[in-house]
Amino acid sequence: MVHFDHDDDKPREECGVFGIFGNHEASLLTALGLHALQHRGQEACGITSFDGKRFPSERHMGMVGEHFGGDLRTRLPGHAAIGHNRYSTQGRPMLRNIQPIFADLAGGGFAVAHNGNLTNARKLRHDLVRDGAIFQSTMDTEVILHLVARSSRPRFLERLIDALQKIEGGYALVGLTGKKLIGARDPVGLRPLVLGRLGDAFVLASETCALDIIGAEFVREVENGEIVVISDKGIESHRFTQARPASPCIFEYVYFARPDSIVQGRSVYEVRRRMGHQLAAETMADADVVVPVPDSGVPAALGFSEQSGIPFQMGIIRNHYVGRTFIQPTQVGRQSAISKKHSPNKAVLEGKRVVLVDDSIVRGNTSKKIVQMVKDAGAKEVHFRSASPPIVNPDFYGIDMAAKSELFAAIHTHEEMVRELKVDSLGFLSVPGLYKAIGEPVRNNMMPQFSDHCFTGEYPTPLVDYESDESDKERQLSLLDDA
Amino acid sequence: MVHFDHDDDKPREECGVFGIFGNHEASLLTALGLHALQHRGQEACGITSFDGKRFPSERHMGMVGEHFGGDLRTRLPGHAAIGHNRYSTQGRPMLRNIQPIFADLAGGGFAVAHNGNLTNARKLRHDLVRDGAIFQSTMDTEVILHLVARSSRPRFLERLIDALQKIEGGYALVGLTGKKLIGARDPVGLRPLVLGRLGDAFVLASETCALDIIGAEFVREVENGEIVVISDKGIESHRFTQARPASPCIFEYVYFARPDSIVQGRSVYEVRRRMGHQLAAETMADADVVVPVPDSGVPAALGFSEQSGIPFQMGIIRNHYVGRTFIQPTQVGRQSAISKKHSPNKAVLEGKRVVLVDDSIVRGNTSKKIVQMVKDAGAKEVHFRSASPPIVNPDFYGIDMAAKSELFAAIHTHEEMVRELKVDSLGFLSVPGLYKAIGEPVRNNMMPQFSDHCFTGEYPTPLVDYESDESDKERQLSLLDDA
Amino acid sequence: MVHFDHDDDKPREECGVFGIFGNHEASLLTALGLHALQHRGQEACGITSFDGKRFPSERHMGMVGEHFGGDLRTRLPGHAAIGHNRYSTQGRPMLRNIQPIFADLAGGGFAVAHNGNLTNARKLRHDLVRDGAIFQSTMDTEVILHLVARSSRPRFLERLIDALQKIEGGYALVGLTGKKLIGARDPVGLRPLVLGRLGDAFVLASETCALDIIGAEFVREVENGEIVVISDKGIESHRFTQARPASPCIFEYVYFARPDSIVQGRSVYEVRRRMGHQLAAETMADADVVVPVPDSGVPAALGFSEQSGIPFQMGIIRNHYVGRTFIQPTQVGRQSAISKKHSPNKAVLEGKRVVLVDDSIVRGNTSKKIVQMVKDAGAKEVHFRSASPPIVNPDFYGIDMAAKSELFAAIHTHEEMVRELKVDSLGFLSVPGLYKAIGEPVRNNMMPQFSDHCFTGEYPTPLVDYESDESDKERQLSLLDDA
Amino acid sequence: MVHFDHDDDKPREECGVFGIFGNHEASLLTALGLHALQHRGQEACGITSFDGKRFPSERHMGMVGEHFGGDLRTRLPGHAAIGHNRYSTQGRPMLRNIQPIFADLAGGGFAVAHNGNLTNARKLRHDLVRDGAIFQSTMDTEVILHLVARSSRPRFLERLIDALQKIEGGYALVGLTGKKLIGARDPVGLRPLVLGRLGDAFVLASETCALDIIGAEFVREVENGEIVVISDKGIESHRFTQARPASPCIFEYVYFARPDSIVQGRSVYEVRRRMGHQLAAETMADADVVVPVPDSGVPAALGFSEQSGIPFQMGIIRNHYVGRTFIQPTQVGRQSAISKKHSPNKAVLEGKRVVLVDDSIVRGNTSKKIVQMVKDAGAKEVHFRSASPPIVNPDFYGIDMAAKSELFAAIHTHEEMVRELKVDSLGFLSVPGLYKAIGEPVRNNMMPQFSDHCFTGEYPTPLVDYESDESDKERQLSLLDDA
Repeated sequence: MVHFDHDDDKPREECGVFGIFGNHEASLLTALGLHALQHRGQEACGITSFDGKRFPSERHMGMVGEHFGGDLRTRLPGHAAIGHNRYSTQGRPMLRNIQPIFADLAGGGFAVAHNGNLTNARKLRHDLVRDGAIFQSTMDTEVILHLVARSSRPRFLERLIDALQKIEGGYALVGLTGKKLIGARDPVGLRPLVLGRLGDAFVLASETCALDIIGAEFVREVENGEIVVISDKGIESHRFTQARPASPCIFEYVYFARPDSIVQGRSVYEVRRRMGHQLAAETMADADVVVPVPDSGVPAALGFSEQSGIPFQMGIIRNHYVGRTFIQPTQVGRQSAISKKHSPNKAVLEGKRVVLVDDSIVRGNTSKKIVQMVKDAGAKEVHFRSASPPIVNPDFYGIDMAAKSELFAAIHTHEEMVRELKVDSLGFLSVPGLYKAIGEPVRNNMMPQFSDHCFTGEYPTPLVDYESDESDKERQLSLLDDA
Repeated sequence: MVHFDHDDDKPREECGVFGIFGNHEASLLTALGLHALQHRGQEACGITSFDGKRFPSERHMGMVGEHFGGDLRTRLPGHAAIGHNRYSTQGRPMLRNIQPIFADLAGGGFAVAHNGNLTNARKLRHDLVRDGAIFQSTMDTEVILHLVARSSRPRFLERLIDALQKIEGGYALVGLTGKKLIGARDPVGLRPLVLGRLGDAFVLASETCALDIIGAEFVREVENGEIVVISDKGIESHRFTQARPASPCIFEYVYFARPDSIVQGRSVYEVRRRMGHQLAAETMADADVVVPVPDSGVPAALGFSEQSGIPFQMGIIRNHYVGRTFIQPTQVGRQSAISKKHSPNKAVLEGKRVVLVDDSIVRGNTSKKIVQMVKDAGAKEVHFRSASPPIVNPDFYGIDMAAKSELFAAIHTHEEMVRELKVDSLGFLSVPGLYKAIGEPVRNNMMPQFSDHCFTGEYPTPLVDYESDESDKERQLSLLDDA
Repeated sequence: MVHFDHDDDKPREECGVFGIFGNHEASLLTALGLHALQHRGQEACGITSFDGKRFPSERHMGMVGEHFGGDLRTRLPGHAAIGHNRYSTQGRPMLRNIQPIFADLAGGGFAVAHNGNLTNARKLRHDLVRDGAIFQSTMDTEVILHLVARSSRPRFLERLIDALQKIEGGYALVGLTGKKLIGARDPVGLRPLVLGRLGDAFVLASETCALDIIGAEFVREVENGEIVVISDKGIESHRFTQARPASPCIFEYVYFARPDSIVQGRSVYEVRRRMGHQLAAETMADADVVVPVPDSGVPAALGFSEQSGIPFQMGIIRNHYVGRTFIQPTQVGRQSAISKKHSPNKAVLEGKRVVLVDDSIVRGNTSKKIVQMVKDAGAKEVHFRSASPPIVNPDFYGIDMAAKSELFAAIHTHEEMVRELKVDSLGFLSVPGLYKAIGEPVRNNMMPQFSDHCFTGEYPTPLVDYESDESDKERQLSLLDDA
Repeated sequence: MVHFDHDDDKPREECGVFGIFGNHEASLLTALGLHALQHRGQEACGITSFDGKRFPSERHMGMVGEHFGGDLRTRLPGHAAIGHNRYSTQGRPMLRNIQPIFADLAGGGFAVAHNGNLTNARKLRHDLVRDGAIFQSTMDTEVILHLVARSSRPRFLERLIDALQKIEGGYALVGLTGKKLIGARDPVGLRPLVLGRLGDAFVLASETCALDIIGAEFVREVENGEIVVISDKGIESHRFTQARPASPCIFEYVYFARPDSIVQGRSVYEVRRRMGHQLAAETMADADVVVPVPDSGVPAALGFSEQSGIPFQMGIIRNHYVGRTFIQPTQVGRQSAISKKHSPNKAVLEGKRVVLVDDSIVRGNTSKKIVQMVKDAGAKEVHFRSASPPIVNPDFYGIDMAAKSELFAAIHTHEEMVRELKVDSLGFLSVPGLYKAIGEPVRNNMMPQFSDHCFTGEYPTPLVDYESDESDKERQLSLLDDA
């Protein structure tokens, strides 16, 4: 059993998804696509293909590159495949909770994988079990499968629409039947899904970087509330909800998406650089050097340096060989300054007034350690800058970001945060600044262009499961090992 | 059996070593130290401790963080330990070739690990086998063990000196007996070894970053031709050769050492940044953006940007989730532009004149791929800059850098290189410029301050094994799987 | 992936089951019980316990003794547990097809394991899938689970009865809920199930030898068509069918049951010895020595020797270290006489007229090899005797005995069999002789005391799935890897 | 790490060896041969072949059939191979202690495996280490390798003879060089080794049963003090000691050899049966049934029955599915009567006066348990008969039989043994009776025909290592995990 050493407390996203239809190396290209999406989930991965008769599947703990090499075309043959990367959460991850999941329905096999979280999955699951459904996992994805299986509609697509109309939440879904590759995105478009093309084949992926790695062209984003159905006859589009403006999750820009991905037509790298510009404009500091918390803080730190004229240097080195399990020694001098992931670069830090730029602050634990490390290395002053606004509300759509009671900015005043972090000053990007960096001159407060509930508390969907009185109401079903 | 996906052709160093004496968490601290030295060898790792009676050992394929967690103090108890990271090479790495290696000598147990390569190991091995020695591995380290075992001198230290006086080459060695931790460095000081202190305990390590991670203070470098002996009585120093100026390997600055390490009193990061300054001064280009080949090209690219005034941007994104085995699809559009490790950041590259900065060019394969990738992403011009001089000679001291016939700069003229790389211009740092960046105003041509044979062809030691007529004379014994 | 080297062609039974309620070492005793039942299934084993809140489970490929040692009370805690041994069949055995299987039903968890085969499982499965059920395995056991889940009856026991009334076939089932241990046996009592007692705890097991190993007392057999429910309140008995005389499978006496088990009050060893007496009386031969095919032929051969006066000797030695996979050399002298499992004992066989006694003949392959081996060892004559009647019909109740077209006695005349086996004479026990050996003076042809369809073609239940026209109608669902 | 569940206390032999020269399926035939010799060692196995250039090797924990299937001709190619089965002993078995062991000697590679124990291995090892030899294992076999490596004689065979003349003890050795297959047997012929032929190939094996399984013909035994050298030129014989009568270990007849093997021209099965005749003649009992302790007691029990006229029955059933690890429940009724390996067959034992026949009694633990089990099953009287004389001295030639202080018959009087075993009578075969059963009318007390030191205390060789004062002088080097 493996566990990553999360000595950071970054928000974690549940998944990356990928699907391809019409290429004889479907599973191999899916593996490559998942590899490019590895940053979206590193603890488990799975691929299901369709070989003309059966749905061969492999699901593994660990990363794509550890398992999906070799004779993949023999192991998972066929012209169509879907795949999934997953972050598991507290407790031990379980093999039966790795996607894609598969079921033999009356009309034939159906495999499905999704990124996101259903906000009424518990209620639906409870109702389904009461009606005799037997669940094989604790994944909310399985709820969708049962809803499809039990729909009374005659055609498969109608049954799927039936199911999607019953669920609430944020999701990007890829599905595979004996004839079709299916993609669907929730009514608000919270979780990302793009459509690409590689020769005659169509591709679905969480981000454009997964199209790039296989040499596919970007076609368009799958829209909120849209189902795309890809088959030998080409591609069809269906809607399962009333049209409404999309409100995608703003955190894709802040942290999740890879910098070389294009999200809603915008370069993630450039948005982050502009967040740095905006951050410098809003929270300038008198300092000698701008230092990013690598790797995620680099673009914003470059932007901060460009705007402020303060030189950019790599004052923190990231060790990329982070292993699986590591016990801390009990007695080591100045223990607090020790990290297996980050090392201070004294030559840059010693005697300097440092602007430290990170993408966000979640629980604050890592931030504290990094500040301490920078000071131990001899920094004269530390000015901490977060390239996103204060995170004061939890997410319920597939991001594991801690409960409200654990969020640093939710439970401390600005002064307390400065004191806790032991910094000389602390600055956050403002919500308007964030919108501006993204390229929206102003936030539409009546119908915000992005789901920014973590900063504003305005949730774009009903939160059925979380409005009850249950003690663990803040836990998302998809983040639980065992419901 | 695992193999890393080396889609780069960086020079690879054989090893990192670590040793500690006098701390009850010796093996745990050794694991942490090896973790900090992981960049020096990622395919195998081993630790041997002394528990007062026996020398418990563990040797594993893979990285430190994958194996040395958990109950390490139970598995490898004791107050002293040594450890080793290893790069294996062609063919399959074999468990019996992982260090430390151990032998029960007449006077007691002796474990040893080293970084480097002996240039007369084959000859010595041949002689030893002729005299009845039985080798259990193909490592040159074992030659040292047999020489110690067969020395006629009465005391252990004398026997070790006896052995070291018979070997030629570059090495930094750590050894462990029931009473002593031993460190030794070759007469020229080719391979690095530093001495540190953590409370009452002494520490030996390949680089200072391994001292930093455990909170130990840097004391001094072990000198060329010096043996340090650490025991309950403290530390002693012995010399086994005539005194002569050191000539450490210049490649530690160019590529091997971690940027936050201090080598011979100099910050590796700062030296690399100055290499960038010098490179810009020598090989200026008219361009819009300076882009590093990450991660190793970052400091020099920052330096180039600072000197030239051309903005620095992350135009190439490095994917850190590189797996073990990965098969290439056979048919993927524009295959040459595909890499699992690097992705182009179009937003930075498109329509731009790009200065591409890397630390060095070895075989040229990766450089070609990266240039192609940058052009495919829309760069208008590509000006390639190598922060080190042309590599025209192989190494024989533990660096795996390809045979002379494979070295890009050894087999091509400048014009051919420009054509092969398909770049608009190509520039290398000069040898004098390299010395200047390190802080030596001028190279002492009679007795160079550094071993720079890869650039100059001047080898600092005899090359016994490689002066014979054998067909594979360019292969170092320590790089062979099976001799 | 492991496969046993079945160089014999004995009939194979699907399973052994075990359950215990009321002992704090429930899982450990279950492991011991399964160990004693290992002869009923050697390719996979599983145990589920109830710890007061959850149903911890382990399922493994391989034998009980390979997996269920060590800290079993920690891994599978609780006062109640059920377990299962399984023979897998053609193709690769799959982890998801190992029992017990578990489901979270509306009223709470339910784990179940069974020995046998449902003869209408395919039809029921087809109907259930049509109604939206999602199956996680290809085991017929799961059909029972879904029937329970979907029953409209209010109480659990009623729902179970509802389910059992829908299924046809032969089965002995153990189930575990949060409050109860349940045992059930099919209406005819085809598959065996006994009830025992260990102190305050009740025990269910396929055979009495599993009671013996844990020191439990035999109480009685579970009756055909009976459900026993064991809880904190003691034991209750329910019937789910009309009362009718039992007709247990006669093959338990012939081959399956362990010789030290007591089946329906009769010592299996003694029955087999009497089969030998009867066999000698019916098929006497003029010979020098009686030799069993070990181990299963030993009791009948002893009986034959006692009745005939011909000395009994171990003329064939069985090698018990039979491994998992073994490839046959391509060129070995007298290949036909080679076996990894049996070796001829020349000292006994050479120059002798041999009566060779085996329990049965299925496909005939092994019999041919053994005869050849005995002749190669120098036997002058070989008189083959089968201690059971000719097998001329397949089983549909959980015994894997080959299709009718593969059964040696079904496709050959007596003369052909003599010729194929290359024996000097061949004799089978008669059906009346078999009944006599069991202690029944005469077979009740109107309502036979035993299910003897393999010999007589009279099946005791409807064969729903096998009366259709499907091509593989002779395959039992529980013997398929993938339905 | 695996451990067999030795709930018996039989003597255990170190090894079985096998070698073949001149067949293109050499490694496959070696695997088959080792499989037939599995009874001589079940915890580890290894094969080394010579492929014309190298000596590919595999060594595994576990049994032959678990590891040596599949593509063996690819994994271990070549026309010659040797192999080894091993019993490991107390503590954990270590991979480096599995044979064959291999060394690159000055003249080329040499692989060797042996059955037996050197009685001066410790002294020789001590001297070799003092002279600079480095040992890679704790096996006494390695002493031979070092002696060969250090011999000053020019030719390989002379060097081997040099080495053999320095060692004392009992051994049967197979060796492989690039040109030759070598067999050697100690001066007394303690450990067995036979020569066979398969077409043009020669075969060496511990027992004839390993010739039988591959269809090879028996040629002759390798003689005591003989070296056979098999090469492309055929077979040569050399002697390395003065001629003297052989004195092979009598325990091969009593327990070790497989019943179908022929040892010194005698059928082991027939010898054991005659031991039963003799035992009945010497220690008759008034009883109802003769019951063997299976499997090893079966031939003697049959002999006892034949001689006495008391019927033979299988009153104890052996469970052959004995797993690796098994924890005993803490609270089970009548615990003493529980065994995972043997089950009582009540139908045979209840109310009977039982003669219980086993091959020998070592520590007495298993005998006690079995007697108790037989009584618990209802036996009225138990008359225990050992088919060998009382074991009162340890072995020093590779048999692990416990120290003298643990030997049941060495530390108890006859009356005490009867009391401890709780039997109604106890009888042992006499030493003269044993000789008679083997076919020697009388023991030659001046120069016994067999090494019978376990019964008589007369050791056939010097016991150098065991005549010193060391505390563990009774431990054989080859039985130690870690010397």
